Amino acid sequence: MHSFEPPFNIVAPDRALEAALRNKIDRKTKPLGALGQLEGLALQLGLIQQTLAPTLANPQMLVFAGDHGAAKAGVSAYPQDVTWQMVENFLAGGAAINVFARANGLALSVVDAGVAHDFVYEREGLIDLKIAPGTANYLEEPAMSAAQCAQAIEQGAGVVLGLAAAGCNVVGFGEMGIGNTAAASLITHCLTGTPLADCVGRGTGLDDAGLARKQALLEQALTRYRAAGGGDEPFRVLAEFGGFEIATMVGAMLAAAEAKMVLLIDGFIVGAAALVASRLAPALRDYCVFCHRSAEPGHAAQLAALQAQPLIDLGLRLGEGTGAALAYPLVQAATAFLNEMASFESAGVSDKAESL
Amino acid sequence: MHSFEPPFNIVAPDRALEAALRNKIDRKTKPLGALGQLEGLALQLGLIQQTLAPTLANPQMLVFAGDHGAAKAGVSAYPQDVTWQMVENFLAGGAAINVFARANGLALSVVDAGVAHDFVYEREGLIDLKIAPGTANYLEEPAMSAAQCAQAIEQGAGVVLGLAAAGCNVVGFGEMGIGNTAAASLITHCLTGTPLADCVGRGTGLDDAGLARKQALLEQALTRYRAAGGGDEPFRVLAEFGGFEIATMVGAMLAAAEAKMVLLIDGFIVGAAALVASRLAPALRDYCVFCHRSAEPGHAAQLAALQAQPLIDLGLRLGEGTGAALAYPLVQAATAFLNEMASFESAGVSDKAESL
Repeated sequence: MHSFEPPFNIVAPDRALEAALRNKIDRKTKPLGALGQLEGLALQLGLIQQTLAPTLANPQMLVFAGDHGAAKAGVSAYPQDVTWQMVENFLAGGAAINVFARANGLALSVVDAGVAHDFVYEREGLIDLKIAPGTANYLEEPAMSAAQCAQAIEQGAGVVLGLAAAGCNVVGFGEMGIGNTAAASLITHCLTGTPLADCVGRGTGLDDAGLARKQALLEQALTRYRAAGGGDEPFRVLAEFGGFEIATMVGAMLAAAEAKMVLLIDGFIVGAAALVASRLAPALRDYCVFCHRSAEPGHAAQLAALQAQPLIDLGLRLGEGTGAALAYPLVQAATAFLNEMASFESAGVSDKAESL
Repeated sequence: MHSFEPPFNIVAPDRALEAALRNKIDRKTKPLGALGQLEGLALQLGLIQQTLAPTLANPQMLVFAGDHGAAKAGVSAYPQDVTWQMVENFLAGGAAINVFARANGLALSVVDAGVAHDFVYEREGLIDLKIAPGTANYLEEPAMSAAQCAQAIEQGAGVVLGLAAAGCNVVGFGEMGIGNTAAASLITHCLTGTPLADCVGRGTGLDDAGLARKQALLEQALTRYRAAGGGDEPFRVLAEFGGFEIATMVGAMLAAAEAKMVLLIDGFIVGAAALVASRLAPALRDYCVFCHRSAEPGHAAQLAALQAQPLIDLGLRLGEGTGAALAYPLVQAATAFLNEMASFESAGVSDKAESL
């Protein structure tokens, strides 16, 4: 398998504006630093957009769905059919991500990146980018070919180009795919070097026996991979273990960072895609807002590797992008305080520094 | 000083509905428990309103402002004038709480419970319930008389009766008062028995020397209180150390719980009021949604005493009700998933229990 140079020109935001942004934040009518994490977030948003007055326009959730060949081997508590059934639930508006996106003003589209089901396409909210009806079983062979992986990245990027043309500058990432916490565990292990046992969790609800079986299966997959050369080259790891939904998401993230959008990163599976994407293009990290801390143990390894501190920690373990949609009002709040709050000067409020 | 029996009839929600609510939550198209803390919140909202389909109507932030006699002794980094200046900032719409309440759809009113300033009253958004222009200095005498404390509670309750009449069923609590983290520290110490040193923090920005001075002053206040009898009777502790804004807030909380409203509890100072109110009427606890974890060290003691786990933890240390306003979309999300999400049956999604 060949290495891969993503055809994206992703540059870190120019930090020349940082001092002016910090000054604007510090002169707001509040004690220095009193808005905690929202202050760093406001700074990040200003740097991404290279302005003292960032705005969020046409926010969009993209939920990437795909099936995993390994799912049939028993890495998940749910049957594979749940993937397409949940896609139908998304399209009908009844899933948690629909509810939260609606509540918080995000549009939602579902990308079929490789679900093992024939949908009726040409439906509002469904984007057909199916590479194949599910990946191969990584217990026996790589989940996808290099060509499929590159195609998925390219197609994911295409979706984002469309969003950018429509004036969207903030994208939330979500996913659906029975078995994809297992894929995320393998990717996280390979890219961060964290012991596999610390990267494997109960997914959507495995019991103790199920967890032990999942871990044994993933060890088996790694043994095969190591025998074939192994390593931590991100494109190869993605093709070896990734779902099509993860690979397509990687492409969408790369394009979104190139377009200087704000990337709302959900939990463990979206985090695995962000990890791959930031290994392919390290500057991508600066465009990511980490939205929630997943209950999956491997998420901590991702967050450490990406030096990220999520906005919320509610014990969610649902995926779909729910953490991103739930945290979005905090991103709006960071923008709003930067744009709308009065300064000590404009409000006529005494600053401590002046009075002591 | 006499003890005080609050004239409120506060009863814990009937839990007969709990099983039906849990079943509704569990049949949603998600793994059991996958929405983490939002599931407990949805259950609480259903119990408060005694319905499987709770709704949030006319949400209202109340920001209670008052001055503290002890502030002049140096328990805060800011001059006392900042209290009234910030009230003017609230009325002009330029403070953080204005921005966040606006962003998240909460109306906002400011209650002058005892600011040391003559406002021009009869302005939209300002409610005049001034007991006196600031409390007495608790280093020398009780902050307020029993009669003043009872009056503040009564007046706070009156505001909430007005809100209830207007169809509001969710109230966010916020505060402004230079010196009121010190008052909250004393109340928290007296009511929870947590050592004073663990209840005292930097407030809005004291340095090391300022923190040491604050702690010494508060020890001095406690010495005086103990010499006068001391104890943990909540009404007496409130009158000894409370600000008028805290006492008025206690009354508003008691009335809100009696009216079976949802109480959005902000951080450390609002938490001190909630602690007093729940000692006066323990069932009040069931109506409280704890919104954010304050950076003030004493907040942990309050949360432990009230067995509360806040929704967000962003390192905020601003007060004003900002944590309540920022967390409100999560409360809306809990309501929305309970009302709008499909069930396994309605969506035709396989449940794990059926498929294994």
